[in-house]
Amino acid sequence: MEEKRIRIILDGDPGHDDAVNFMLACGSPRFEVLGITTVAGNQTLENTTRNALNLMQALELDVPVYRGCSQAMVREHIAAGDIHGKSGMDGPVFEPLRRTIEAKHAVNFIIDTLMESEEPVTLVPTGPLTNVAMAIRMEPRILPKIEQIVLMGGCYQLGNRTPAAEFNIYDDPEAAHIVFTCGRPLTMIGLDVTRKCLCTPEVIERMEKIGNRASQIFADLMRFFSSTQKKIYGWAGGPLHDPLTCAYLIDPSVLTVRRMYAEIDHGCYGPSYGRTNCDFFGRTAKSREANADVAVDVDVEKYWDIIEAGLRAYSR
Amino acid sequence: MEEKRIRIILDGDPGHDDAVNFMLACGSPRFEVLGITTVAGNQTLENTTRNALNLMQALELDVPVYRGCSQAMVREHIAAGDIHGKSGMDGPVFEPLRRTIEAKHAVNFIIDTLMESEEPVTLVPTGPLTNVAMAIRMEPRILPKIEQIVLMGGCYQLGNRTPAAEFNIYDDPEAAHIVFTCGRPLTMIGLDVTRKCLCTPEVIERMEKIGNRASQIFADLMRFFSSTQKKIYGWAGGPLHDPLTCAYLIDPSVLTVRRMYAEIDHGCYGPSYGRTNCDFFGRTAKSREANADVAVDVDVEKYWDIIEAGLRAYSR
Amino acid sequence: MEEKRIRIILDGDPGHDDAVNFMLACGSPRFEVLGITTVAGNQTLENTTRNALNLMQALELDVPVYRGCSQAMVREHIAAGDIHGKSGMDGPVFEPLRRTIEAKHAVNFIIDTLMESEEPVTLVPTGPLTNVAMAIRMEPRILPKIEQIVLMGGCYQLGNRTPAAEFNIYDDPEAAHIVFTCGRPLTMIGLDVTRKCLCTPEVIERMEKIGNRASQIFADLMRFFSSTQKKIYGWAGGPLHDPLTCAYLIDPSVLTVRRMYAEIDHGCYGPSYGRTNCDFFGRTAKSREANADVAVDVDVEKYWDIIEAGLRAYSR
Amino acid sequence: MEEKRIRIILDGDPGHDDAVNFMLACGSPRFEVLGITTVAGNQTLENTTRNALNLMQALELDVPVYRGCSQAMVREHIAAGDIHGKSGMDGPVFEPLRRTIEAKHAVNFIIDTLMESEEPVTLVPTGPLTNVAMAIRMEPRILPKIEQIVLMGGCYQLGNRTPAAEFNIYDDPEAAHIVFTCGRPLTMIGLDVTRKCLCTPEVIERMEKIGNRASQIFADLMRFFSSTQKKIYGWAGGPLHDPLTCAYLIDPSVLTVRRMYAEIDHGCYGPSYGRTNCDFFGRTAKSREANADVAVDVDVEKYWDIIEAGLRAYSR
Repeated sequence: MEEKRIRIILDGDPGHDDAVNFMLACGSPRFEVLGITTVAGNQTLENTTRNALNLMQALELDVPVYRGCSQAMVREHIAAGDIHGKSGMDGPVFEPLRRTIEAKHAVNFIIDTLMESEEPVTLVPTGPLTNVAMAIRMEPRILPKIEQIVLMGGCYQLGNRTPAAEFNIYDDPEAAHIVFTCGRPLTMIGLDVTRKCLCTPEVIERMEKIGNRASQIFADLMRFFSSTQKKIYGWAGGPLHDPLTCAYLIDPSVLTVRRMYAEIDHGCYGPSYGRTNCDFFGRTAKSREANADVAVDVDVEKYWDIIEAGLRAYSR
Repeated sequence: MEEKRIRIILDGDPGHDDAVNFMLACGSPRFEVLGITTVAGNQTLENTTRNALNLMQALELDVPVYRGCSQAMVREHIAAGDIHGKSGMDGPVFEPLRRTIEAKHAVNFIIDTLMESEEPVTLVPTGPLTNVAMAIRMEPRILPKIEQIVLMGGCYQLGNRTPAAEFNIYDDPEAAHIVFTCGRPLTMIGLDVTRKCLCTPEVIERMEKIGNRASQIFADLMRFFSSTQKKIYGWAGGPLHDPLTCAYLIDPSVLTVRRMYAEIDHGCYGPSYGRTNCDFFGRTAKSREANADVAVDVDVEKYWDIIEAGLRAYSR
Repeated sequence: MEEKRIRIILDGDPGHDDAVNFMLACGSPRFEVLGITTVAGNQTLENTTRNALNLMQALELDVPVYRGCSQAMVREHIAAGDIHGKSGMDGPVFEPLRRTIEAKHAVNFIIDTLMESEEPVTLVPTGPLTNVAMAIRMEPRILPKIEQIVLMGGCYQLGNRTPAAEFNIYDDPEAAHIVFTCGRPLTMIGLDVTRKCLCTPEVIERMEKIGNRASQIFADLMRFFSSTQKKIYGWAGGPLHDPLTCAYLIDPSVLTVRRMYAEIDHGCYGPSYGRTNCDFFGRTAKSREANADVAVDVDVEKYWDIIEAGLRAYSR
Repeated sequence: MEEKRIRIILDGDPGHDDAVNFMLACGSPRFEVLGITTVAGNQTLENTTRNALNLMQALELDVPVYRGCSQAMVREHIAAGDIHGKSGMDGPVFEPLRRTIEAKHAVNFIIDTLMESEEPVTLVPTGPLTNVAMAIRMEPRILPKIEQIVLMGGCYQLGNRTPAAEFNIYDDPEAAHIVFTCGRPLTMIGLDVTRKCLCTPEVIERMEKIGNRASQIFADLMRFFSSTQKKIYGWAGGPLHDPLTCAYLIDPSVLTVRRMYAEIDHGCYGPSYGRTNCDFFGRTAKSREANADVAVDVDVEKYWDIIEAGLRAYSR
């Protein structure tokens, strides 16, 4: 008997690692990908949307792409960084774009899909949480239709955008606050584990050897990404953050998660703005209800195996 | 030659004074009312929406009513107050409701109307600014289509919801921040002037004498509203806040406005949360650009004349 | 039978109006002035201390002067403004300074005086509240020895340093928070009443006619102060803020005060930083205990009479 | 030729680990301990002061003890925790107290000592930073007399008082902000390294075997401390936080420190209140000047050797 497919919406700001996550999800028989929604973050909304379309076209996937929010809910605009290059997904060279964007706004797509769905849907955000939070606030009746939210973002140790905060959360802390307090099952996969998943030249070579188009795109993406990470942090490779979300949905044993209370520093624009404070030691357990499964460890080898299988799933 | 009608969207949380504003606007030949959008505030979204429908039905108006946001963008939920009674618009007795709500969400109605409109549209919010702010953030391309925003809210002296803040702004300070920084022409009509417009028993009698259905609804509304205001503040009548917006659009000479910098206290949840800090003395004029026409005085007698003419415009 | 003298410590940042307050207090038989403590505010600590010494010398008063804090408790340093001129007390010309400062720090003077005093002492701060707050935090056992605190500062309507905040409170909001929550009787005399006390040319002439040295210093001070106020606000004269404190101690009927809850906006560095939120309408009366007598009206003519009597008290 | 002794002031809230630090410092020929200043923190000021006196008496040391601040500079009072037991230093049994406290306030002792000292003095705070910050604000002229500040406090990974913040910093974040921005050389020794120094039963036994009074007090202290730590965190022993300060002054090679920008989350009372955000990756290096040497690693074995030598220094 066939296992039931997990119905998901991929929400992100591709972005090299978002792209790999999209590849992993769209190629896997474990998922029914209902749509991809884009958001500003690693780059402008125009760029992240074009990147998503380019990827779908290159992989000959017909997953619809919806354009979402071009700026954070409340905070002032932040200029996109350069860690992902000028396009936000430098590396691969794509053919002229023929694929088109859907007419519906990403927020409306999320709302309509959930409201019309009889069974709950899993949300997989790997960018700023603007689209998801806007949908929750615009139509709170979607909440019971959210099966769970598995997101890449945050950290309980050191940040990367600031000493306190990780990029995705820092880009829209108010949206993150809404998502973390929405009451639905939530898994936070943060820098604490993703930083252990360095995509070294060896990993890139291993994936490239698969020899299909997906593996080539992977190699093109990660060579560029690793080079900028190396320049900034001096690491042996770029940490492959985002695909841990779908890898975890495919095989939960890839991560060790611990249920705890996690709270977003938002509002005050202080030095910790955008931090995800996770009650690792359970100090507030008597007064605050746990609201997140926080990833505290990762089986890195298993992760690469899942990535490899994901790339091999593409026939060409 | 006929004067061109002002195309407006009425956004509010009726609410006694919102209702009078809707009556003033919908009956006036000066306006083309494109729609009414509702928001939680004085009461729950369910109640404010029902109140708007009841009013439209009682006045036999076919202005469409769109249901908007049921909670603020970011801040925690605030229980609705009781100054407007259990229904949020206690006083008049309405027939069983036959009028129905539009299918489209208020935020989408605002976005679609503006995007499809060739000429700019004026927004007239008299409740929390959630719908308008959500529309701006979801689709920033609507901005050039906003002719101006004329809102009731805020104060540069004493608040009413807290010592620092007025109800509408306090209910969603983050939304107010977005609206006040959106770059479009904005008129803030706050407690500093609306508190001078006490709807005394004499005013109510004067309006009631008009003798049509609109005037009766006015009298029923304001008798209730004045009684609760009297109980709390000891005033001779309830201040008729909201209709100053459309009164000002009908005859700008009813208000004295002054252009200045106005900034919303948002984010920090401190004791001034929701305050509208208005640079009355121009102390920051060198560093901050004026962003609002702030009402600093009102011709109360002219206001009552406008209200009376507005009620008389109804044939029955 | 002689009325008992009120034992006070004058704490300020002279400052034209601080100086007039010192003159009023030191010349009046109603007070026993235990000492003057200086603080940075209108100008640097060096300047405000020199100004206090100059004044004492010119009036041949032997009240000891103690040097206090040169910067706020927590907030970053603010450059002194120019409304009081280069020296912080421009106008009168003083002889070379012979009077010397006391060795003890102002904070220690306040602590020691209170701890050693059998009867409570009244504190009269007319500058930033740094000295008083530092004393309270360094030695909380002084609290029962504080008879009351009568201060000039704050506003419940419009600020002067920012749209939200008055100068003295803005200069050290954290200190103000400590003072307003210290639990001792407190009278806040803010801009809401002091702005009504415009020292017009007529008032200056009236005082100058007294013809003693004190009246001449008054006229020299206020001519300068009124000229800068006029330049900035366009007013007919400078508001004589600070002496309302001692005028109120001499004759409480000069002010109408109302007991209410007052809360300092501190900590967050938001747009309302330094605001004194006063619950004028008693909206929080059920949840917050009143902690201040806030001045809500002033008998301006009585005020000028008190000032005149105060200046006349000087024999030469 | 004899090496010059380091002149230090020990400031803390004993507290088990503060006490061990005092023992280490007062027994070592490397230091001239000018005085011990106490502060509220692990327990009330009364308790921490009594604990300091008890320790000095038991060790027959004549270092003077000065009573400091009983509450934080600005923040509301926090009830003392129970990790240090009812007295704040449970474990050893002391004889009736004969040693007396000095008359001078700790803040004045710090100010006077520094102002009168020809050579700079090193400050070693191991509790909330209230005393040091109050001294800096009360008399900023002490700053050039501070050789350096070597403190136990903070963390750049996980907190212990809250998910974000370590106890000492959380107890007075505003004081910490003042100390971290004072411009003097500063070494922050936080949980990131102290948590590695678990005082296991083996370590306690090793120290106890020394067989003098100091070693017995150490054993009594750490047996109690380890038992409460074990109960809360499940660790094999209590982390011996504070003595890393003097151990580092005795032998800097015990720590690896890295110069970086460190910023205190203060003011806003948000979820990260009291966090020490350390720019471990140098992301803000272009815009912010490094202000702290932050401990990033520790040679645990060398630490225990220093502790053992410190205890052996006591003759009885």
